[in-house]
Amino acid sequence: MQRYKCVLSYDGTGFFGYQVQPNKRTVQGEVEAVLAKLHKGRDVKVTGSGRTDAGVHAKGQVIHFDSPLNIPNDKWVIALNSLLPADVSILTVEDAVDGFHARFDAVGKEYRYYLQLSSNRDPFMRNYAYQYPFSVNVNAMEQASVFLKGTHDFTSFCSAKTEVVDKIRTIEEIDFSFEGNLLILKFVGNGFLYNMVRILTGTLLEVGTGARTPEEMAFILEKKDRRYAGKTAPAHGLYLWKVMY
Amino acid sequence: MQRYKCVLSYDGTGFFGYQVQPNKRTVQGEVEAVLAKLHKGRDVKVTGSGRTDAGVHAKGQVIHFDSPLNIPNDKWVIALNSLLPADVSILTVEDAVDGFHARFDAVGKEYRYYLQLSSNRDPFMRNYAYQYPFSVNVNAMEQASVFLKGTHDFTSFCSAKTEVVDKIRTIEEIDFSFEGNLLILKFVGNGFLYNMVRILTGTLLEVGTGARTPEEMAFILEKKDRRYAGKTAPAHGLYLWKVMY
Repeated sequence: MQRYKCVLSYDGTGFFGYQVQPNKRTVQGEVEAVLAKLHKGRDVKVTGSGRTDAGVHAKGQVIHFDSPLNIPNDKWVIALNSLLPADVSILTVEDAVDGFHARFDAVGKEYRYYLQLSSNRDPFMRNYAYQYPFSVNVNAMEQASVFLKGTHDFTSFCSAKTEVVDKIRTIEEIDFSFEGNLLILKFVGNGFLYNMVRILTGTLLEVGTGARTPEEMAFILEKKDRRYAGKTAPAHGLYLWKVMY
Repeated sequence: MQRYKCVLSYDGTGFFGYQVQPNKRTVQGEVEAVLAKLHKGRDVKVTGSGRTDAGVHAKGQVIHFDSPLNIPNDKWVIALNSLLPADVSILTVEDAVDGFHARFDAVGKEYRYYLQLSSNRDPFMRNYAYQYPFSVNVNAMEQASVFLKGTHDFTSFCSAKTEVVDKIRTIEEIDFSFEGNLLILKFVGNGFLYNMVRILTGTLLEVGTGARTPEEMAFILEKKDRRYAGKTAPAHGLYLWKVMY
């Protein structure tokens, strides 16, 4: 039995999220169906670094699975991709040490949020960036992000629906860059709570339009109450970019 | 009655091409349905600069239509977009002179063909570029394009299914550029025959891989027979980029 670590990318548009749900098309479900085929119908469980919601994309999701099959890593990539649908792609497969765990061994994650600052809707980006027709002050958003970086209790920036108890996380980096009319927010941290990147983005946008001041971020953090933060930005602008081990 | 010239963009993935067909989702069909709504159910015919096939995209298709409604141009854009599905977007609407014709008055067109030179499939580009896993010699493709530029009988580079009689066209420009692993072929000419850009691209790719020499292009043109040219490149890499008047 060999444990494999596998990096994959998917277009989240056609999925009800990463995690298996009965009678729904999910990324985990598609990968497990393909692994079952390669193992003559035997169930092979796949463990991801974490869930992504319906519509959320991944450039570098990481999963692990165990297999008795003796297949070289590059052949795993070819075999999996030849059976997977076109909206999921296996990028790499490598041998992992016994006991490697895609979720518990992750030491950090990078997410990116794509905003399209335009009043013209772009049919090619409708599922890949959040079209935002208002002008934003990126400088103010950068000032706000200073309050968010570091180690904090992020209860206010977490969906109230979560079951996680410890809401202390460390954000190492919040970076802003432009590609044409796309404003890309990059978040790097040791872990992110449920909807956290989308709530951070929604709140930063409210700073960008002047509806909130950068300094309000300190107040929101302190309140430890979801109702004080801004709107949850839509799923289709979000990408799980990388998982660090 | 005012004649309007309208520039629109669409993601061709979800359409059976531009032109209306019974019981099929088409771009023209969607636009005409919206215009009928805006005209209280009255039919408003839309005329495009030309057809695009199923899966082919447009960054700047041009259409014209006549309307008795007295709506300012920018309000036309908003009204149409508010009713159109998200994979079509009206970019501009302007008053056209009486008798302006989107098809007959076009003096040139620009098409682009997107190739993704990669052996890893990219879930985000699966409908927007033709993934080509072989290495290509762009220099040889450029040499081949010299034979194709200018005024020629393009019968060999036209689908045998066409009904057009005059197959003489002028290609003013064939340009090659890279954006990351995307190789973009730009074709500018006074008009293009049915499937012409896709057959040109497919044939140039065969030069790129060394299966044909650049000089063979002269021979293929001379033969005036579709069977001598290369494969038709798939629809989903092709974009109608611009129509010139």
